Amino acid sequence: MKVFVVGSNGQIGKQLVHLLKQSDQHTVRAMVRKEEQAEAFNKIGVETVLADLEGSVDGIAAAAEGCDAIVFAAGSGGHTGADKTLLIDLDGAVKTVEAAEQLGIERFIMVSALQANNRENWNEKIRPYYVAKHYADRILEQSKLTYTIIRPGGLLNEPGTGKVAAGENLERATIPREDVAGTILAALTEEKTFKRSFDLVSGDRNISDALKSL
Amino acid sequence: MKVFVVGSNGQIGKQLVHLLKQSDQHTVRAMVRKEEQAEAFNKIGVETVLADLEGSVDGIAAAAEGCDAIVFAAGSGGHTGADKTLLIDLDGAVKTVEAAEQLGIERFIMVSALQANNRENWNEKIRPYYVAKHYADRILEQSKLTYTIIRPGGLLNEPGTGKVAAGENLERATIPREDVAGTILAALTEEKTFKRSFDLVSGDRNISDALKSL
Repeated sequence: MKVFVVGSNGQIGKQLVHLLKQSDQHTVRAMVRKEEQAEAFNKIGVETVLADLEGSVDGIAAAAEGCDAIVFAAGSGGHTGADKTLLIDLDGAVKTVEAAEQLGIERFIMVSALQANNRENWNEKIRPYYVAKHYADRILEQSKLTYTIIRPGGLLNEPGTGKVAAGENLERATIPREDVAGTILAALTEEKTFKRSFDLVSGDRNISDALKSL
Repeated sequence: MKVFVVGSNGQIGKQLVHLLKQSDQHTVRAMVRKEEQAEAFNKIGVETVLADLEGSVDGIAAAAEGCDAIVFAAGSGGHTGADKTLLIDLDGAVKTVEAAEQLGIERFIMVSALQANNRENWNEKIRPYYVAKHYADRILEQSKLTYTIIRPGGLLNEPGTGKVAAGENLERATIPREDVAGTILAALTEEKTFKRSFDLVSGDRNISDALKSL
């Protein structure tokens, strides 16, 4: 599959782009917002396209045209205000869903957040972030796309272990970003993840085994 | 009908509560956040209940129990940040929808905003507000409730004229809050507004005629 990665310059996105680049099974097109981000990817032979999540659905669709799957791994980042949370994490995500629908790209993977599905467990300090993720996920679940919503726990920058736990209502825990990227890669073609939403934290099973048992 | 008004202390909400109080056809229960707001209503014989849109769905449902219709006229207000926009205008609205579903209260009227349905026409300065209204409306439209979404134009505090225009894709224009309240009152039992979303601005038709022609 040719995979369109939204949020390629983010911490999970970058690792996913590299995994896809190395993969025999897939190719990748990285969506980036700035020319210098494109140059860095182009230097290592990654196809890029400039587009902006604050732009139109048509703009995102033009960028994704010809791809077979879309991964939404963008985030407004912890340093921005709630206005960007609304514009990127919610509206940007849903515009990407609408672009997929417009193009007939059925496979869609969303990187969400642990507990985004349970209001009562939202951390008070980043409650607006959870609201945005919650509704983006709800709109995707109500779409006709072959979606997968992955809700990782606390994200770490340490190297991945390749061992995860995937399922519903997992205890709050952490996971290296590298293992989230590895899980997205494995989920692309794993039918057990189709039209499913699940929590993801570090665990004791290989990624592919964990996904097959969903 | 007994009508549960969320946002009773807001500028449209207050006028609606008074219209319902005077009505022969309906009774009203005003949801308020603070004790002093309740006292002001109780003094004029309006039933009140204390509840918080930042609280749980169960809390809102407990407040609305026994009512036959719900009007969501709350707004975080122009002076608050985008975090409150997410928590009140989006999540607070959807929690109220979920409370209605939980209680089996089918009739639900949402006060939205002109152009909330058209991303390309969102005013740049209050774009986060439109995002919140847009997704609250989308979730309501996807519910099984007998909803009406009213999208008024620029809100004025001048006295109502009783003359409005209601429909799709109306030109940007203004409307007195009193006429929005009057339209909500008339819409409660007007079947032409059931499962419909429409723009509302000042016009040249009586409110009831304008709604019957939808």
